[in-house]
Amino acid sequence: MRVSAHRLTPGADLKTALEQLVPAQDLRAGCILTGVGSLSSARLRMPGAAGEADVFRSYDGPVEIVALSGTLSPEGLHVHIVLSCPDGSCVGGHLVTGCIVATTAEVVIGELADVEFRRPVDPATGYGELSVEPRQPEG
Amino acid sequence: MRVSAHRLTPGADLKTALEQLVPAQDLRAGCILTGVGSLSSARLRMPGAAGEADVFRSYDGPVEIVALSGTLSPEGLHVHIVLSCPDGSCVGGHLVTGCIVATTAEVVIGELADVEFRRPVDPATGYGELSVEPRQPEG
Amino acid sequence: MRVSAHRLTPGADLKTALEQLVPAQDLRAGCILTGVGSLSSARLRMPGAAGEADVFRSYDGPVEIVALSGTLSPEGLHVHIVLSCPDGSCVGGHLVTGCIVATTAEVVIGELADVEFRRPVDPATGYGELSVEPRQPEG
Repeated sequence: MRVSAHRLTPGADLKTALEQLVPAQDLRAGCILTGVGSLSSARLRMPGAAGEADVFRSYDGPVEIVALSGTLSPEGLHVHIVLSCPDGSCVGGHLVTGCIVATTAEVVIGELADVEFRRPVDPATGYGELSVEPRQPEG
Repeated sequence: MRVSAHRLTPGADLKTALEQLVPAQDLRAGCILTGVGSLSSARLRMPGAAGEADVFRSYDGPVEIVALSGTLSPEGLHVHIVLSCPDGSCVGGHLVTGCIVATTAEVVIGELADVEFRRPVDPATGYGELSVEPRQPEG
Repeated sequence: MRVSAHRLTPGADLKTALEQLVPAQDLRAGCILTGVGSLSSARLRMPGAAGEADVFRSYDGPVEIVALSGTLSPEGLHVHIVLSCPDGSCVGGHLVTGCIVATTAEVVIGELADVEFRRPVDPATGYGELSVEPRQPEG
């Protein structure tokens, strides 16, 4: 596994920054190994039942990034996050745009060596779901 | 470290699926590097004081897996999980059977190269606790 | 990436134990890959706005370590933690001294190969922030 560490600076949009790491680090089968930092404002997609309209919630900072997990590839990111609020309580959900770095975000990414992550639509769920495939030579 | 990525499909029991990865991937010193997904229903063991009866709580989905951590080996798993609920609040605890995958679960597992995880009972705690030992040749 | 696994025993202070791993494992660019366990008591620093006095909260155990993330190097640790309480609710924040291991803590640490983590003060935030630099030969 090839590993890289990154510090995001104040004002960065966390999801956009992760998306930009995909071509910058040539990630074809990336996963988040660790992530910590702080956000000045946050927006998450809530869990929902299939077929329901997506629900988003916004949170005023300062909040801490206390867990960051997921996979990254050219066909898409699937990243979940847990935030802690000033009273210590935690909120979490699916990372979407609108999570803005306050002072810093430290993210360590691993890139698997011999596979690549594809996201073909799975008829069972209606979403592009992770498919772990043998790595193809670059075209 | 040898690394493998896996997608679990709807209806899978998360703990059972992780247990099945141990022989399938020949894990002798495995750890969860990242885990995201959704559950249609969940059941967790709560923290408790030594000597108290175990307490379990069940949660109706949809909930998101927002953090998944722990170690895996033939002598047992020790996995903790954080879930986010439709209102964004988080619950967490010790992973037990009864966490059923809704649409997907993506799990990346690392296998340490030169050691193996054993779980001898520690008289100080009464539990089989992690012991990191030099890897033995396979019998 | 070089990887090591560690079990902390009852009574250990989690932050102090992680700090001791830095020289013991010669970590110059370490990150937490996974962490699970239990605490008999906990103390966290809450998120706060720049310029405000730090706020700490204490929690009586038993609580579970359900997520542990961050970076480690000789110039400092930046570690965030999520704990689950006996009712399943989660609290989180910045790891400080005062988190005491109850029965066990299992921590897996990765050390990046070609870089080292420095923490020069960033005038934009007033804190020592992560800087990922080429690894220097040891003096």
